[in-house]
Amino acid sequence: MKVSRERWSRDFRGWFREVIFNSGVYEYRYPIKGVGIWPPYGMKLRRYVLNILKRLLEERGHEEVLFPTLIPEEYLRKESEHIRSFEKEIFWVTRGGKEALKERLALRPTSETAIMPILKLWVKSHADLPLRIYQIVNIFRSETKATHPLIRLREVTTFKEAHTVHATFEEAERQVSEAVRIYCKFFDELGIPYLISRRPNWDKFAGALYTLAFDTLLPDGRTLQIGTVHNLGQNFSKAFDVTYLTPEGKHEYIYTTSYGISERVIAALIGIHGDDHGLVLPPNVAPIQVVIIPIYYNEEERRAVVKEVEGVEGELKRNGIRVYVDKREDVTPGEKFYYWELKGVPLRVEIGPKDVKEGKVTLVRRDTLEKWSVSKEVLLIEVRKAFSVIQRDLRERAWKWFRERIVRASDLEKALKFINEGKIVEMPWCGRGECGLKIEEKLSCKVLGVDISQGKVSGKCVLCNNEAKYYVRIAKSY
Amino acid sequence: MKVSRERWSRDFRGWFREVIFNSGVYEYRYPIKGVGIWPPYGMKLRRYVLNILKRLLEERGHEEVLFPTLIPEEYLRKESEHIRSFEKEIFWVTRGGKEALKERLALRPTSETAIMPILKLWVKSHADLPLRIYQIVNIFRSETKATHPLIRLREVTTFKEAHTVHATFEEAERQVSEAVRIYCKFFDELGIPYLISRRPNWDKFAGALYTLAFDTLLPDGRTLQIGTVHNLGQNFSKAFDVTYLTPEGKHEYIYTTSYGISERVIAALIGIHGDDHGLVLPPNVAPIQVVIIPIYYNEEERRAVVKEVEGVEGELKRNGIRVYVDKREDVTPGEKFYYWELKGVPLRVEIGPKDVKEGKVTLVRRDTLEKWSVSKEVLLIEVRKAFSVIQRDLRERAWKWFRERIVRASDLEKALKFINEGKIVEMPWCGRGECGLKIEEKLSCKVLGVDISQGKVSGKCVLCNNEAKYYVRIAKSY
Repeated sequence: MKVSRERWSRDFRGWFREVIFNSGVYEYRYPIKGVGIWPPYGMKLRRYVLNILKRLLEERGHEEVLFPTLIPEEYLRKESEHIRSFEKEIFWVTRGGKEALKERLALRPTSETAIMPILKLWVKSHADLPLRIYQIVNIFRSETKATHPLIRLREVTTFKEAHTVHATFEEAERQVSEAVRIYCKFFDELGIPYLISRRPNWDKFAGALYTLAFDTLLPDGRTLQIGTVHNLGQNFSKAFDVTYLTPEGKHEYIYTTSYGISERVIAALIGIHGDDHGLVLPPNVAPIQVVIIPIYYNEEERRAVVKEVEGVEGELKRNGIRVYVDKREDVTPGEKFYYWELKGVPLRVEIGPKDVKEGKVTLVRRDTLEKWSVSKEVLLIEVRKAFSVIQRDLRERAWKWFRERIVRASDLEKALKFINEGKIVEMPWCGRGECGLKIEEKLSCKVLGVDISQGKVSGKCVLCNNEAKYYVRIAKSY
Repeated sequence: MKVSRERWSRDFRGWFREVIFNSGVYEYRYPIKGVGIWPPYGMKLRRYVLNILKRLLEERGHEEVLFPTLIPEEYLRKESEHIRSFEKEIFWVTRGGKEALKERLALRPTSETAIMPILKLWVKSHADLPLRIYQIVNIFRSETKATHPLIRLREVTTFKEAHTVHATFEEAERQVSEAVRIYCKFFDELGIPYLISRRPNWDKFAGALYTLAFDTLLPDGRTLQIGTVHNLGQNFSKAFDVTYLTPEGKHEYIYTTSYGISERVIAALIGIHGDDHGLVLPPNVAPIQVVIIPIYYNEEERRAVVKEVEGVEGELKRNGIRVYVDKREDVTPGEKFYYWELKGVPLRVEIGPKDVKEGKVTLVRRDTLEKWSVSKEVLLIEVRKAFSVIQRDLRERAWKWFRERIVRASDLEKALKFINEGKIVEMPWCGRGECGLKIEEKLSCKVLGVDISQGKVSGKCVLCNNEAKYYVRIAKSY
């Protein structure tokens, strides 16, 4: 059996919709556009992914909180750039029971304006700083664009937003770097490749000084923004009049940052590692890490196999491995193989009469469909080794695929060719918004921004032919 | 030092507001009435409480899911009794951006009407049953009554709702019993005493055949509903036309149940165990289980004490105990004692120069403020023992206090006297709604319902003097 990625690469959107639905990760038949459901299997996957993110944030001093969904209109309007950008997609609650509300309430599109009035109460002096909080909540955007399951939603159910407060600009800058490091670790643990770009000014978070964004690439050649980090400077603290007392006894506006990740990371995880058989999940987030398929053809064999299966199941469970035995009687082993491949279970253990006789079990890797036999005594070691190899191989395969699709071009014609091949293109750019926007228009693409750790740039701006300051990254994007 | 519950019993509401705020459990100064924030300490308490509930549900075959917040008006209206009851407190989303929505969307007040259209897709045949799902979500009720932090909210942030589907009425009945057992275990683990009552018909969940409810009692003599279990029969499945194929090939409407618990359980936990010093948390849900206070008066002592403290901290941590060392230099030990008592940390470890010399540590129980000294070698054993004793003592003290406040009365005059003393009263009742409603009116109280496992009743209905069928429970309530 060979791995095929034909359908996956040829018709990614169709593949994606089918796989997330058939595998039980996501249910999108809810009667409101852009609003979906996490069924049990998807919910477990979501839980393991979030556990990694929570651990990474908490190790670095972030504490979990929970702020309200509803934001009074007055507060949402305080930061003028912020509301201008979000206004067109706010869901408004205007009625409670049969009464019109005195003031409209927004369903949060993000929580800066819910958190600032409370920071005003919580932060008094420099001794209260720094402060690092995060929450995992639902946010709402009345999208006018076409929605996609897990990717472009009107109710985003899984928005992890962190908010931090600092005494100085330099501290806020260091926090931005820290956030970038945390997100790198997170994506690395999921094997998701990424580029980090400083978004152009016309595309930064509304109210931020600047935005750094993580983009990955899906098989249809469109980039997907999977994480953003904003230095908000004193923009929100000035709008909400939030100051702290310095050691010298002066009042100074606080500096804030915010950074977020949504269920898009799960869309990326699925999209990037999958193949024509369905999901391919990294062992660290797989709801079921090992599925055991008993194989037998008569009652005598059944008894011997079942006994062996129970032993193996017990040993793996005792050692903290998420294992499931598919005991269904009315389904053939072959059908079971397909079923669990669709669900992306990283490792399959087959135990048949021959295995029992030889004291062996058969292992099959989901990512490569490679099959091998090991002695029962070393099974646990072998399973752990396989997990770590799969985890590494998935990451390496994904990065290799990704790197091959980042190319440089020195003129628009070549760039367009690459864009149409589904690649991310870097081109010399003078740095002016005017030229950036024209590039987007001419190539029907999106400017992702510039590398944050970019070296020397040689060449002329592909548009105006002035001296280039940056390589600008462009791509088709979601 | 003695435990005092003077303020706690005399001015419970004032005590409660102060304690949840000062201890960092809950922040209610958000600019929308009845909407609050979980700060870090409260969020950790919430997490540990929910972990118990999740474990109990998952052990009994419930799988976590996540359904949308938004419900189309059409769906909310399908079950007529349901909408009649909830209509007056629905928050309506009517606008998206600058446009009016074509159809109003409700913020879920509970999720039956969001789940039923999906059950229609998920449930095809008897092989799909039973089905047990749960979610922990925010729900919204545009309360017109006065709101109370954690107790009566307009955004309930922590609604655990379970929904189950069955092939027969008998199976649904068995699930109701199972749900009751799960909730009993849950409240027992938190040491919260309760009565289980079958709510009268005029107070059952809208759309249910009947509702069983768990009530506890707060120190101000008002009962608090902390859990409900509903047998929904075929009411919702008929409204949504959800059938399954029986083994005989017939289409039959599914039977459903639902049951819920909210952050009120945390209000009860705090209200029931607390005292004038603040929170008293059971060890199993305390965010910090042991706080270590180093005590020293000069540099030499400091060095010796700090070394000892690090040893003790390490040992407890390695053994999975949530421990925190209060190293603040600008705060006296006495101030630290008050601070951690307010936060309800179950066990305080004091380590001073004398303790170091003698190879001992001093322990102080939060619930009794009892102080004792143990040799360092047995500290871990002693801590574990103390946890189990505290856990048991809190539960027993709470149940004793609760039981003393459940009394019987055979006429309205005596009942009124008991009600005014903050008790729950059981009285003979004919079972007719007419009499029940009059009792509520005459005594300005609430009928909680009748015992689900009630024995023989003797006496005459306190109102109509006909033969009594039940003891009816009445009380002042939240």
